[in-house]
Amino acid sequence: MTDSAPPSAPAALPAGVRDVLPVEAEELRAVEGSLRQRFALHGYREVMTPVIELAAVLERAQEGPAAPAYRLFDDRGRVLTLRPDLTIPAARLVATRMAERTGAVRVFYVARAFRPPPAGRPRPAEERQAGIEHVGPSGPDADAEVIALLVDALTAAGLGGVRIGVADVSLTAAVLEALGVGAPAAGRLRGALAARNFVAWRRGVATLGLGEDEARLLADLPALRGGVEVLSRVEEAVPQAAPACARLSRALELAAGRDGGADVGVDLGVLRDWPYYSGVVFEAYAPGVSEPVAVGGRYDGLGARFGTDRAAVGFAIGLELLHRSLAPRSRPDGPRLGAVVVGGFGPEADTARSRRAAGIAVAVASDAPADAEAIADEDDWRYVVRRDGPGFSVRDRRSGERFSCGRPEEVLPSRP
Amino acid sequence: MTDSAPPSAPAALPAGVRDVLPVEAEELRAVEGSLRQRFALHGYREVMTPVIELAAVLERAQEGPAAPAYRLFDDRGRVLTLRPDLTIPAARLVATRMAERTGAVRVFYVARAFRPPPAGRPRPAEERQAGIEHVGPSGPDADAEVIALLVDALTAAGLGGVRIGVADVSLTAAVLEALGVGAPAAGRLRGALAARNFVAWRRGVATLGLGEDEARLLADLPALRGGVEVLSRVEEAVPQAAPACARLSRALELAAGRDGGADVGVDLGVLRDWPYYSGVVFEAYAPGVSEPVAVGGRYDGLGARFGTDRAAVGFAIGLELLHRSLAPRSRPDGPRLGAVVVGGFGPEADTARSRRAAGIAVAVASDAPADAEAIADEDDWRYVVRRDGPGFSVRDRRSGERFSCGRPEEVLPSRP
Repeated sequence: MTDSAPPSAPAALPAGVRDVLPVEAEELRAVEGSLRQRFALHGYREVMTPVIELAAVLERAQEGPAAPAYRLFDDRGRVLTLRPDLTIPAARLVATRMAERTGAVRVFYVARAFRPPPAGRPRPAEERQAGIEHVGPSGPDADAEVIALLVDALTAAGLGGVRIGVADVSLTAAVLEALGVGAPAAGRLRGALAARNFVAWRRGVATLGLGEDEARLLADLPALRGGVEVLSRVEEAVPQAAPACARLSRALELAAGRDGGADVGVDLGVLRDWPYYSGVVFEAYAPGVSEPVAVGGRYDGLGARFGTDRAAVGFAIGLELLHRSLAPRSRPDGPRLGAVVVGGFGPEADTARSRRAAGIAVAVASDAPADAEAIADEDDWRYVVRRDGPGFSVRDRRSGERFSCGRPEEVLPSRP
Repeated sequence: MTDSAPPSAPAALPAGVRDVLPVEAEELRAVEGSLRQRFALHGYREVMTPVIELAAVLERAQEGPAAPAYRLFDDRGRVLTLRPDLTIPAARLVATRMAERTGAVRVFYVARAFRPPPAGRPRPAEERQAGIEHVGPSGPDADAEVIALLVDALTAAGLGGVRIGVADVSLTAAVLEALGVGAPAAGRLRGALAARNFVAWRRGVATLGLGEDEARLLADLPALRGGVEVLSRVEEAVPQAAPACARLSRALELAAGRDGGADVGVDLGVLRDWPYYSGVVFEAYAPGVSEPVAVGGRYDGLGARFGTDRAAVGFAIGLELLHRSLAPRSRPDGPRLGAVVVGGFGPEADTARSRRAAGIAVAVASDAPADAEAIADEDDWRYVVRRDGPGFSVRDRRSGERFSCGRPEEVLPSRP
């Protein structure tokens, strides 16, 4: 350490990032693998985009000021950014590299997005996400497919009691327009909803000078939740919103007929804070977790900003949030299957090779007596194998038993 | 586009990064999965570190000036960096989060490293790597384990004819010291070797004023390749290098006795350009590819820079280079298994559900006649299924045959 060393700990990390240790890393990979498998079974195909993008390109997708993002410069002085979300890069990829396609395009990604945490708030700066984009079809059947896939993927990952709340930004926009709410006031209301600040929403509604019934309908709008029948109140009061209500009803009916029996319902309080959404928007909730584990929606105008005007709908699942939402897996009540073999260059090498070929992990320890026990304890392997006279001794850490044998294969399991 | 739009294409990417499309992405994931499985079978466990680190922390691992890396600032003005390699973060993680361990620690990672490409040179800015770290044991048996694991992992991924060249920076250092080469000259020679500039090496040797035999030995040193017997020339000429030669011989003998029959030999031209290596260093080559697909070595001093002084040896495989080095997989001579089903809300939904449950991908198409064909062509699915009167028609794009059936399950395969 020199005098100019920073006052941080010798191995400190930036705000909002973290290391992931083996047990959690393995569980995250299992969740990732499950999602990847479900996406693939529904005909979605994986794509990968760079972490580093040109800021000016990603900002094409935004209305108004650029969203918070890490920025840096390349050697030509151009502003680079670490992708702050994965929907925009996926839309860019499909609009450019798959522009010639005429059929529906189904892609998925498993990757990290990066956003500087607000000063002093413990928010993650790096978020692992797994998401899909369904590009081309614009009807409620595509909305329904994507919502049903979200239910299927979350359920297959082990999440029980999934609840999906679905709204439609075009429905809310139709109501505001029909009631004569101008763009500036509508923008303020939208901001309140995106922040889930229902008090600000009601306060904003009260300043609009609407009639009593209209004011009450609008004030209550974000609180409308339930089956598609709750939309009838909107349709009756605001006939101009009927097409949007009918479309949302149809998407929910279709989704209910697909795989999965999750609680999928109307929740007009859902309004995503990315400005690119154009139709259906939805959030998935796990029991007892306040933040949504997944968010998504329709963003038909996004592709055109990258040169290909195709409708699109998709979602992103927060992998770490999903992992934390899962009930602790039924872990075996004992050490993990696998063995520590002392020494690895004589007959022990044959044992290691044959068990690995059978799918069983084998770590090698030196012949210092304490090493094998330390490795077995610290990585939680079930068996410890060591030479013992002309044969071997195998200790089963689960049962505590010790076996003597000519070859460890007589005692070790022959399959995972 | 506004007047202030940059002169780049509407969806340009920064220098050195790229999008990865489905076929390649799937193959990369397959390679990744194979490596992950081999690492796990050898008792290694996955860890994940952040993309963004504090520059001052990572630079602790470096002698001399900081290596090229992307830099940015956080809201407190601290310099952040995108990890330019994965060995240093892994060493940091083990030295801090696993500091209490007494047994050998085996970890692996599959992640990206980031380095700004030199101006005007088409080098990747983001590199996918899969690597391992074996922390604790310092003997040649640990070197041998890691080299043998590299052979095993590359071979299991499908790479034939792997060649591993192994050197030892302590051996080269012992020779230079025994010949009285001072630190500045040794540093220049080391730089020449790291750049694989053998002309600069020979020119540097010629300026040292050595005797004829010594000059020839030293000039030839980086060209020494072959079995362990090539080390006898060094041992005879420079007895002070005998311990390092003996240790390298032992590691190679042990590695040869482990899994895999790759060509593992001495290659004293191998010298990695990261200054943290302290002992054995090695590179893996695939036939016909000039860049090494993997590099590694021993870096016993790295952990101490993060507070825990433990020996360590490891390697990193370049995933994209490995993927490109693999012989094109024996792809089936026809479309991929999977089906496009027209419509997805009647009996078709049952078909989609049952085939997915059997592990077969099913994408859904709208009932516009061209859609299913476009999807099947563009994503290369084998079967197209559509309602046909009271039953279904199934077209096999591989054989060109068309089947009529009551239920598509009568025709579609029942397992992948």
